[in-house]
Amino acid sequence: MSQIKIGQVGLGRLGKVHAGNIVNHVKNAELYAVTSVVEEELVYAKESLGVEKCYTSYSEMIEDTDLDAVVIASPSGFHSVQITQALEKGLHVFSEKPIGLDLEDIQQVVENINDNQDKVLQLGFMRRFDESYQFAKESIQNGDLGKITTMRCYGIDPSTGLNSFINFAKSSASGGIFLDMSIHDIDLIRWFTGSEFKTVYSLGNNIAAPELSECDELETGACLAELEDGTIAYLLAGRNAQHGYHVETEIIGTEGMIRIGNAPEKNLVTLYDKNGVVRPTSSHFPERFKAAFINELNAFVNAINEKEASTVTGVDGLKSTEVAIAMQKSFEQKKIIKL
Amino acid sequence: MSQIKIGQVGLGRLGKVHAGNIVNHVKNAELYAVTSVVEEELVYAKESLGVEKCYTSYSEMIEDTDLDAVVIASPSGFHSVQITQALEKGLHVFSEKPIGLDLEDIQQVVENINDNQDKVLQLGFMRRFDESYQFAKESIQNGDLGKITTMRCYGIDPSTGLNSFINFAKSSASGGIFLDMSIHDIDLIRWFTGSEFKTVYSLGNNIAAPELSECDELETGACLAELEDGTIAYLLAGRNAQHGYHVETEIIGTEGMIRIGNAPEKNLVTLYDKNGVVRPTSSHFPERFKAAFINELNAFVNAINEKEASTVTGVDGLKSTEVAIAMQKSFEQKKIIKL
Amino acid sequence: MSQIKIGQVGLGRLGKVHAGNIVNHVKNAELYAVTSVVEEELVYAKESLGVEKCYTSYSEMIEDTDLDAVVIASPSGFHSVQITQALEKGLHVFSEKPIGLDLEDIQQVVENINDNQDKVLQLGFMRRFDESYQFAKESIQNGDLGKITTMRCYGIDPSTGLNSFINFAKSSASGGIFLDMSIHDIDLIRWFTGSEFKTVYSLGNNIAAPELSECDELETGACLAELEDGTIAYLLAGRNAQHGYHVETEIIGTEGMIRIGNAPEKNLVTLYDKNGVVRPTSSHFPERFKAAFINELNAFVNAINEKEASTVTGVDGLKSTEVAIAMQKSFEQKKIIKL
Amino acid sequence: MSQIKIGQVGLGRLGKVHAGNIVNHVKNAELYAVTSVVEEELVYAKESLGVEKCYTSYSEMIEDTDLDAVVIASPSGFHSVQITQALEKGLHVFSEKPIGLDLEDIQQVVENINDNQDKVLQLGFMRRFDESYQFAKESIQNGDLGKITTMRCYGIDPSTGLNSFINFAKSSASGGIFLDMSIHDIDLIRWFTGSEFKTVYSLGNNIAAPELSECDELETGACLAELEDGTIAYLLAGRNAQHGYHVETEIIGTEGMIRIGNAPEKNLVTLYDKNGVVRPTSSHFPERFKAAFINELNAFVNAINEKEASTVTGVDGLKSTEVAIAMQKSFEQKKIIKL
Repeated sequence: MSQIKIGQVGLGRLGKVHAGNIVNHVKNAELYAVTSVVEEELVYAKESLGVEKCYTSYSEMIEDTDLDAVVIASPSGFHSVQITQALEKGLHVFSEKPIGLDLEDIQQVVENINDNQDKVLQLGFMRRFDESYQFAKESIQNGDLGKITTMRCYGIDPSTGLNSFINFAKSSASGGIFLDMSIHDIDLIRWFTGSEFKTVYSLGNNIAAPELSECDELETGACLAELEDGTIAYLLAGRNAQHGYHVETEIIGTEGMIRIGNAPEKNLVTLYDKNGVVRPTSSHFPERFKAAFINELNAFVNAINEKEASTVTGVDGLKSTEVAIAMQKSFEQKKIIKL
Repeated sequence: MSQIKIGQVGLGRLGKVHAGNIVNHVKNAELYAVTSVVEEELVYAKESLGVEKCYTSYSEMIEDTDLDAVVIASPSGFHSVQITQALEKGLHVFSEKPIGLDLEDIQQVVENINDNQDKVLQLGFMRRFDESYQFAKESIQNGDLGKITTMRCYGIDPSTGLNSFINFAKSSASGGIFLDMSIHDIDLIRWFTGSEFKTVYSLGNNIAAPELSECDELETGACLAELEDGTIAYLLAGRNAQHGYHVETEIIGTEGMIRIGNAPEKNLVTLYDKNGVVRPTSSHFPERFKAAFINELNAFVNAINEKEASTVTGVDGLKSTEVAIAMQKSFEQKKIIKL
Repeated sequence: MSQIKIGQVGLGRLGKVHAGNIVNHVKNAELYAVTSVVEEELVYAKESLGVEKCYTSYSEMIEDTDLDAVVIASPSGFHSVQITQALEKGLHVFSEKPIGLDLEDIQQVVENINDNQDKVLQLGFMRRFDESYQFAKESIQNGDLGKITTMRCYGIDPSTGLNSFINFAKSSASGGIFLDMSIHDIDLIRWFTGSEFKTVYSLGNNIAAPELSECDELETGACLAELEDGTIAYLLAGRNAQHGYHVETEIIGTEGMIRIGNAPEKNLVTLYDKNGVVRPTSSHFPERFKAAFINELNAFVNAINEKEASTVTGVDGLKSTEVAIAMQKSFEQKKIIKL
Repeated sequence: MSQIKIGQVGLGRLGKVHAGNIVNHVKNAELYAVTSVVEEELVYAKESLGVEKCYTSYSEMIEDTDLDAVVIASPSGFHSVQITQALEKGLHVFSEKPIGLDLEDIQQVVENINDNQDKVLQLGFMRRFDESYQFAKESIQNGDLGKITTMRCYGIDPSTGLNSFINFAKSSASGGIFLDMSIHDIDLIRWFTGSEFKTVYSLGNNIAAPELSECDELETGACLAELEDGTIAYLLAGRNAQHGYHVETEIIGTEGMIRIGNAPEKNLVTLYDKNGVVRPTSSHFPERFKAAFINELNAFVNAINEKEASTVTGVDGLKSTEVAIAMQKSFEQKKIIKL
């Protein structure tokens, strides 16, 4: 196994998770370089992670001919350009979702990806690398659930982050709750059913955060969708789970039902105290998907070493973005949208 | 406390539950008479329940001047007429839902009820009398959840009953899955939120029972609804739960979330066996709502004795039926229906 | 079914549970008379329960020739005498445990019981009438667990009652934690295994309530026992469960394991709040065993009406008391006791 | 961080876990050499793990001056000698428990360890590195449970391994169930309470595996112990859990109770199928403690790099072995043993 030299762009919250994992947990990889426009983040990379090559320009970083791959964890607006630039330099690419903000851009990126089939291109749909999701996927492939009839996907961020989102929303555009959050669930539904979305109908409210209405954002977004194979799917995205980070996925089949994360249990501890019988819960995504984030980077590095294609492709990024945009449009226009 | 003499019409599955409860569990009541057109049911009433007055005609039964009240558990099509007849005879009425099949009928019944305010009229929305639902209701009234933002209601019948429903559906009309099953959930949503439905949008499929498509019935029906106060509600009705009788209700509020029946646990037993860690589940509605069925009849008898109005009124029956009919229409016309 | 006229002695906490159940929930029975030396309790019986015949003397009450049966819920020291007196008057007897405080007394009572085989004598081991315990019993009888190898029984009273117990202990003798509390678990172990205790070894501590050491009482008592059939049993009794009333029973067999009351869940509600995922718990024995208390009296009344023997006999009372006394002795003498 | 060169002896089931982790998951370490007397195991090391230096003699392996540390996963009888030899060569040592089979040996090893304070010596009590145990430890240190009053520790191996253990027991000595299995629980009790064992009293049976009686082994061993600080502890070891690998630890304190592994849940998946509501469980120790095994080796490697002492010392090995031997003696002599 050769040691893969990685250059990462973006060292925000999720960026730090990836960078830390490359340094401490991904065996055949090295965090060779980083790019950030935030001074403190570069200091962090140098001092806490021991990275020597620190850049403020992505274009400069990818000039380094020792690089094997990039990890893109920059703001969403940069993804499409940075993916394209990296591919042109002959680099393997791991990119956070979405691969672009509008469909034209994404289409272009997908074409670029298709033109570089010898490069590994992997999107950060980390849930697919979570052991619970993998257990469910295998169980479904074994036929344990029969045919899928209905799915339900919840992605609710912890209340602890609500105020900071409100502040963010006042000055920046998240793309809307469906593009920002539901996209992971859209990917899961496509992954589990192997089918594509046919129609979507969305509702939303801001009962828990009336300020968000002023900036055209939603605290709660819900969608009832039909897939091409007839499966009915319900998606709920929210920003106010008092008990932590609630990602739950339910698959109902003709022979049984599976729930992943019925409760986002933190570990195997149960407390019996004055509140009753309590299972502590995961507080945020780095905690809930700690192992999945490590696994997805290991998969990326292995794919490079083994010269195999990634299982999370550019088309997955394109399709899920299309659906998310339709969900947002349905909410705005108060009508059923066909895909 | 005086002993209330009850005449019951209908001794099918649910009828037997009520009759058995009156005989064995409802303290200040007596099963004085029964009406059924099924010979075996009358034999059962006489021999197993010790009822002496057995009729084949409801009209005859309610001529008996010793009667205080009727319990109506006949097929849905008879409810509106039988309620009206009983009220005319000055009897208190406990009736299973729905109070009628079409809105005109129901409107008429509600008027008749309003003209007989001194009589107790109670509808069989037994879930309101389940201790878990009452605990949740109280918790919400205490403000533990803050303001309600979203609800989710599942009512999925056990797979064990699917074939018999298919046979039934070939010859009879159930009124559709929403009127037949979702009506309990509609009532719960109205009860918990204190708000009325504004729009509904429904989907359905028969992946688990293709035969049902031939008789215009659904195995799975789903609906995304908006309430007047902005609450978003998702309702799922089904006829194929492999693990038993799955009734689950979720209320998400600004301060927390409650789930009732996350799993329909049969009791406090946990098995640790070759399947893993297993909680046995309720197999059918008489098991899941055993205590609720007793409680609702006790409440009915107490209301008569205490000369108080019932808490489950004719208007509750009217409103929930209106919504169920709209849900069915939405599915058939593939569009969003406004109420 | 004839209406059984019951006279009850004792209207303390448990007495009120029984009396209320006879009045409100036990169908073929009437609370015909009560005896108490506490004025307020008689007022309660008269006003809240509508009992007309109120006595301050048990001997006088049982002179009433209309009585069919007595329910004995007086302090433990009176049980043996009151059982004997009732049997002499030809009355059926439901008595709370224990049937006596010392073994000689109990032996005498058991003889009296044996001389009155036509009378129903039932002891208040209500757990046998709890649906979870009955489910487990049936499962074991079906062979689902194979042969029993180990049992574990927890009976831990809620912390909310600890101070009142400390006050009680300063002036009265409870008989020790094993006789006071473990006796229910001893009965369950005998009931599930069908085997008798061979050896017991007990420990205890008062870390949670040092004051109890001064009055020779224990907050926590533990016992490791061996049964004649080789089963190993662990019993834990305590008075300080912060989360409520914790009664838990585990049966490990060669083919699987069952836990009853892994957590004493109050109902089917789950809260998702700032504490995590919370199942509310039963706060005290009247709540946890609400239905069991009703069931045991129904069984008593049915046994009288059907002229059948009770399933909870005087011998059960004798044997369990013997074991509890041995457990106490083991703790006091710091040695293994053979039975 | 320098790359630690590790030589491992023993490539049985647990050995393979360690070796695989060093190769794939422990970032600053390299599996430089292995020793095994089993031909297939060396082939495995060479082909599957890519280890170049393969020995059949431990003494030869530790002659290699490039080695930094050894991982000892050989049969228990070799531990004390191999630890001593490694220390003499100036190597850091990670050794599986126990550090010896008889107390004299162990005492000698502990002295050798004490004479080599500059070397990291870590014992394989991996449970301390499991995140659930660490969460509980921290919670207790924060005072959430108040003072500890009682502990309960279950360690039950899966039924799937029972036959192979019976075969093993016919020809080899395991040291007895308490030394073989309870030692992990003894360590946990010492770790959580910070107190030492005062008395132990053990029972055992072979109801699930009568053949084991012929070779003086136990399928089930149970022990009731008292600690110096008054804590009561119950330990149960077994070899026949139908549902998988059941390691459960309960800590009851004056302010609450914690259970770790109430059920050995495999992941966050819940199945709702014909068996009821099912949580799949861990099948064996490599699955249940997958992350803990990685964590403990990372801790070992970090301790070497940071020149810090390990937190799992030779004294921990000595003390826990003393207690396990006393537990075995108590069972054999049918009496309470003082430590």
